[in-house]
Amino acid sequence: MAETERARSGGMKWLTELVNEWRAAGQRIGIVPTMGALHQGHLSLVQAARAECERVVATVFVNPTQFAPTEDLAKYPRTLVADLEMLAAERVDAVLVPTEDEMYPPGFSTYVQPPEVSQKWEGAVRPSHFRGVATVVLKLLNMTRADVCYLGQKDYQQVAVVRRMVADLNVPCEIKMCPTVRDPDGLAMSSRNRYLSKDERQIGLSLSRTLFAAEKQIRSGAKNGPELSSWMREQLIASGVSQVDYAFAADADTLEPLTEVRLPLVLLMAARVGTTRLLDNLVVRQG
Amino acid sequence: MAETERARSGGMKWLTELVNEWRAAGQRIGIVPTMGALHQGHLSLVQAARAECERVVATVFVNPTQFAPTEDLAKYPRTLVADLEMLAAERVDAVLVPTEDEMYPPGFSTYVQPPEVSQKWEGAVRPSHFRGVATVVLKLLNMTRADVCYLGQKDYQQVAVVRRMVADLNVPCEIKMCPTVRDPDGLAMSSRNRYLSKDERQIGLSLSRTLFAAEKQIRSGAKNGPELSSWMREQLIASGVSQVDYAFAADADTLEPLTEVRLPLVLLMAARVGTTRLLDNLVVRQG
Repeated sequence: MAETERARSGGMKWLTELVNEWRAAGQRIGIVPTMGALHQGHLSLVQAARAECERVVATVFVNPTQFAPTEDLAKYPRTLVADLEMLAAERVDAVLVPTEDEMYPPGFSTYVQPPEVSQKWEGAVRPSHFRGVATVVLKLLNMTRADVCYLGQKDYQQVAVVRRMVADLNVPCEIKMCPTVRDPDGLAMSSRNRYLSKDERQIGLSLSRTLFAAEKQIRSGAKNGPELSSWMREQLIASGVSQVDYAFAADADTLEPLTEVRLPLVLLMAARVGTTRLLDNLVVRQG
Repeated sequence: MAETERARSGGMKWLTELVNEWRAAGQRIGIVPTMGALHQGHLSLVQAARAECERVVATVFVNPTQFAPTEDLAKYPRTLVADLEMLAAERVDAVLVPTEDEMYPPGFSTYVQPPEVSQKWEGAVRPSHFRGVATVVLKLLNMTRADVCYLGQKDYQQVAVVRRMVADLNVPCEIKMCPTVRDPDGLAMSSRNRYLSKDERQIGLSLSRTLFAAEKQIRSGAKNGPELSSWMREQLIASGVSQVDYAFAADADTLEPLTEVRLPLVLLMAARVGTTRLLDNLVVRQG
């Protein structure tokens, strides 16, 4: 892990040299972009990359441009020492931990204006969020010249935004979506779960429980999209969530709400438990 | 030129394969992005690329997203057969002539929000112009995976916008600005010059004449930026241009107008002669 060690001191120049070496040798590069506070969900992405690519780069950067001024940038969990240990154990080839100034030097002023699929749901609740996500992901893909980028299904709309951006801008990188990893109780893993009190966590379980119950209803023949949506919302509220931002069945590609249930679809939801926002989703496929 | 021939039929997939071959062989790729209607200015860019890169790709695409609805997209000169002959004579390795649909397929909706230097001058006169330029250039750089991109100084602000975009988004490509090529009478070469009547062309000569005269004044000790600016504007109007969009001495990097003349600087101007907009500029360096 000498290279991982170097990442912390050498910064971005070091990475460029390493990447140029790898490319010259014809090696396939996978990237796992993260904001740190790593959990098994992130590690599953690293493992997928490790299985498919000769070189794996993880990045750890709490990206300020994807947080609104009212959001939790300052208190977002930072656990760099533990993160680096976990990444070393997964045998990544390099970890890039850029500073804010390296990513956004004085005079920085170019952004990605993200695709239309960024406008709704998370984009409506968090207006400049996906602009920040699209911009930082494009920067990281360019910096690492990655062939494949691994993203978690937990942030389903994020994957849709990045996919469309990469297609629209002809970025020579493949986007792979890896399954959401859940705790044994069903809660989708998230760095923000550590904000939850014990009681809040119990309430938070209503998201996955409602998703799996809704899937059962669909398998049993439920056809009406808005009815399913109302039912999911009621389940969440009955379980004690503070606010439901959205909960509905959507077309798996466009993320438009479905009037009539047809597969494949994605059940998308976001709800607040206390002051913590939780996201979850479930793709329902034929058969 | 078998490859150039293939470019016209095979479209973008063909280019990707070719570029992958070249990269695997460790060859340096230069790109010359154009809107066609080629003249000696474009060819000087191809020649610079040919001298420095093992592979040279030219692109010919009249990019609709950089034209406002009121502008000359429909009547922009298209001379593809002549263009391909000229490029063949310069021994380019490939010419990409994408269709609008290949560049902007249905659902396309991601753009580059260009850097701050895009806001003023050309950006003020043509509000969405640089968004279109930055977006198409990024797409072309990604499609060709070019190591070096050659742009003409004639569009000085465009070069500044692309440079800043490439730096801000960490695009692994070097931007080279090549000198403006002029006709023997001093007129900066431009595809739009063919719109000019004989009389209008005579009026158009006032741009370069005023630039060179302003340089002389600076060399003789002129210090006052606004005075120089007024003088340039008066010269242009006295020569019969229909409208001066701007004419002033600017910082060579930021393009901010200079109150006090200091070198290096750039003299920037845009003026209308009849219905044709002409641009010109001159960099004035120490010594």
